[in-house]
Amino acid sequence: MIQRFAFEVYATVGAARTGVIRTPRGEIRTPAFMPVGTAATVKAMLPDSVRATGADILLGNTYHLMLRPGAERIARLGGLHTFMGWNGPILTDSGGFQVMSLAKLRKIAEDGVRFQSHIDGAQEFLSPERAMEIQRLLGSDIQMVLDECPAFPASEAQIEASLALSMRWARRSKAAFGEQAGRACFGIVQGGEFPHLRKRSAEALMEVGFDGYAVGGLAVGEGQSAMFEVLDATGPLLPSDRPRYLMGVGKPCDIVGAVSRGIDMFDCVLPTRSGRNGQAFTRWGTLNLRNARHADDRAPLDPECRCPACRDFSRAYLHHTVKANEIIASMLLTWHNLTYYQDLMAGLRDAIVAGSLENFARSCTQNWGTTGQLLSD
Amino acid sequence: MIQRFAFEVYATVGAARTGVIRTPRGEIRTPAFMPVGTAATVKAMLPDSVRATGADILLGNTYHLMLRPGAERIARLGGLHTFMGWNGPILTDSGGFQVMSLAKLRKIAEDGVRFQSHIDGAQEFLSPERAMEIQRLLGSDIQMVLDECPAFPASEAQIEASLALSMRWARRSKAAFGEQAGRACFGIVQGGEFPHLRKRSAEALMEVGFDGYAVGGLAVGEGQSAMFEVLDATGPLLPSDRPRYLMGVGKPCDIVGAVSRGIDMFDCVLPTRSGRNGQAFTRWGTLNLRNARHADDRAPLDPECRCPACRDFSRAYLHHTVKANEIIASMLLTWHNLTYYQDLMAGLRDAIVAGSLENFARSCTQNWGTTGQLLSD
Repeated sequence: MIQRFAFEVYATVGAARTGVIRTPRGEIRTPAFMPVGTAATVKAMLPDSVRATGADILLGNTYHLMLRPGAERIARLGGLHTFMGWNGPILTDSGGFQVMSLAKLRKIAEDGVRFQSHIDGAQEFLSPERAMEIQRLLGSDIQMVLDECPAFPASEAQIEASLALSMRWARRSKAAFGEQAGRACFGIVQGGEFPHLRKRSAEALMEVGFDGYAVGGLAVGEGQSAMFEVLDATGPLLPSDRPRYLMGVGKPCDIVGAVSRGIDMFDCVLPTRSGRNGQAFTRWGTLNLRNARHADDRAPLDPECRCPACRDFSRAYLHHTVKANEIIASMLLTWHNLTYYQDLMAGLRDAIVAGSLENFARSCTQNWGTTGQLLSD
Repeated sequence: MIQRFAFEVYATVGAARTGVIRTPRGEIRTPAFMPVGTAATVKAMLPDSVRATGADILLGNTYHLMLRPGAERIARLGGLHTFMGWNGPILTDSGGFQVMSLAKLRKIAEDGVRFQSHIDGAQEFLSPERAMEIQRLLGSDIQMVLDECPAFPASEAQIEASLALSMRWARRSKAAFGEQAGRACFGIVQGGEFPHLRKRSAEALMEVGFDGYAVGGLAVGEGQSAMFEVLDATGPLLPSDRPRYLMGVGKPCDIVGAVSRGIDMFDCVLPTRSGRNGQAFTRWGTLNLRNARHADDRAPLDPECRCPACRDFSRAYLHHTVKANEIIASMLLTWHNLTYYQDLMAGLRDAIVAGSLENFARSCTQNWGTTGQLLSD
């Protein structure tokens, strides 16, 4: 077992690259998609099933876990991996984004953010030091710095001020992370849609020095082309020997476009949340299984898919169980969607090795009917 | 593959017996517990997982399936087995009980029962002929006659009148069932708590001649001792070479007591519904995982249980996911409870073969702290 966190690039095509992140808990093939395991479970999935979809790493949410069941409790119970029955690597966010999107009565100050729990209204506090302490208690393999996430849209002045605070917090986060054998600490580039602010952020983070660099503050409503512009501007600023993680992204076409711009890691609730809402991702786009046109369809979702939903059931069955609000519909569609996402990532990795990323992206675009500019110029 | 429905008894202890029901779709080891797959799914379980618990046969609900997705649709889609991905035997009820407990504006007449769907208020009609037609369309391996289920409590006169109608319907059901190679048709003994009415019902059914005999109208509020009295009186009336099925029962101690009185088959929503409500069955009784005392408990539900909930997770994890309303809690606790029930049935079968049913029942009683009279005198 290796004891160091390491990243190795095997092949590149333009800005895109494929490789592996090595951790003591296992390897992460990149580009990687991380299913979201918010409250110590990938919703509607058992850990073995998540592994069977091809996932190498999960994401856990500091905000949710600190509120329930509590970081100290999880530490007493042996850490998050043992608690949730997942023995592969786990990346945890810092809680900053959820504090902004879920918590009540937020008060941001230099030392940290005070807020009320959305579960029971309890007073809570998150600082860079506490965010890192929680992630250490959870036993997280990749820990994220606490940053301040401005609401979208925001003015340049607001983003500049927020960025300055986030960079001070990044330094404090790294100091609090200290040295943890085999574990990594990632910085988060902020700066909205302003290239000079993204540059300032990237430089400030590199001065501190992180094991990987995330791009934050995207997929918040700016649209795909704005997001790709930020990636085009930000990617070249980041060290090529460290993993790059695009937080909270995204749709399959977002991922293809971001991979072509040099991103190595992704997380998003889309496959799991869509699955619980009766939506399936397929090679031809999304299907809403609630639609009556599936009621008599004996065909599987996708005859070439290897997941149980496609192997053992018809679209008619999925339609019926979605309509009847049966738990099995959430189980099967989540499994299918995660399989779809992992197979997409495997396809991207193979295409980079084969030097055929452009063809791969074009065939995705044609199948989905996407009109946007997927590939970086 | 055998083409006939057949029942063979291997061993007996007093009235209790163990054996096997052979069907073209597979063998059913008796005494058998049938998980309930109401709307073409055992809630929160994939079919492979149901099989892994040890279940040989499922129960499907005619009432639910006729309303949604519809019997003709399921037939077009290849039958219930194909539709729901379960290749073992399926027993279907006739819909009579659910019409009484779920439907609105019921009107019972000689020809059948008119009612409104609880889903969309649509006018529906169920007669003995239609109930059997639906079960044939579903492809059910064991089909139940339509009976009229009086509300509990009911007077002797009410039960007598209801019984007379049910026996006329039983004759019509059997005639409508006709001959179906490898499939069985079961009659249902009614008569409330009145031994002479149970006798009249059993005799009327035997005159028609069925492949198996169910005991209906129990577990509706009469209490365990009244139920056992009915079984003591009814069991000896029924032919010993046909399976006996106690409908809708029950708690583990009900099952042990009923097996000792000669019952071969059971179905009940208790293990699945309790699982979704955070309750677990264990050798020591039931546990409410919602209870805060489990929050820091690293122990599994039952260290000797072979299910994933016990193998991979702690009571603390189950508590957390129950509290957070996570789907995985329903998945794990349903899996555990069905495993518990199947292991109970396996224990009963082994105890009958070994001649140690009395010891087995006594140890169950001691562990559960049950005070009732489990064994038949």
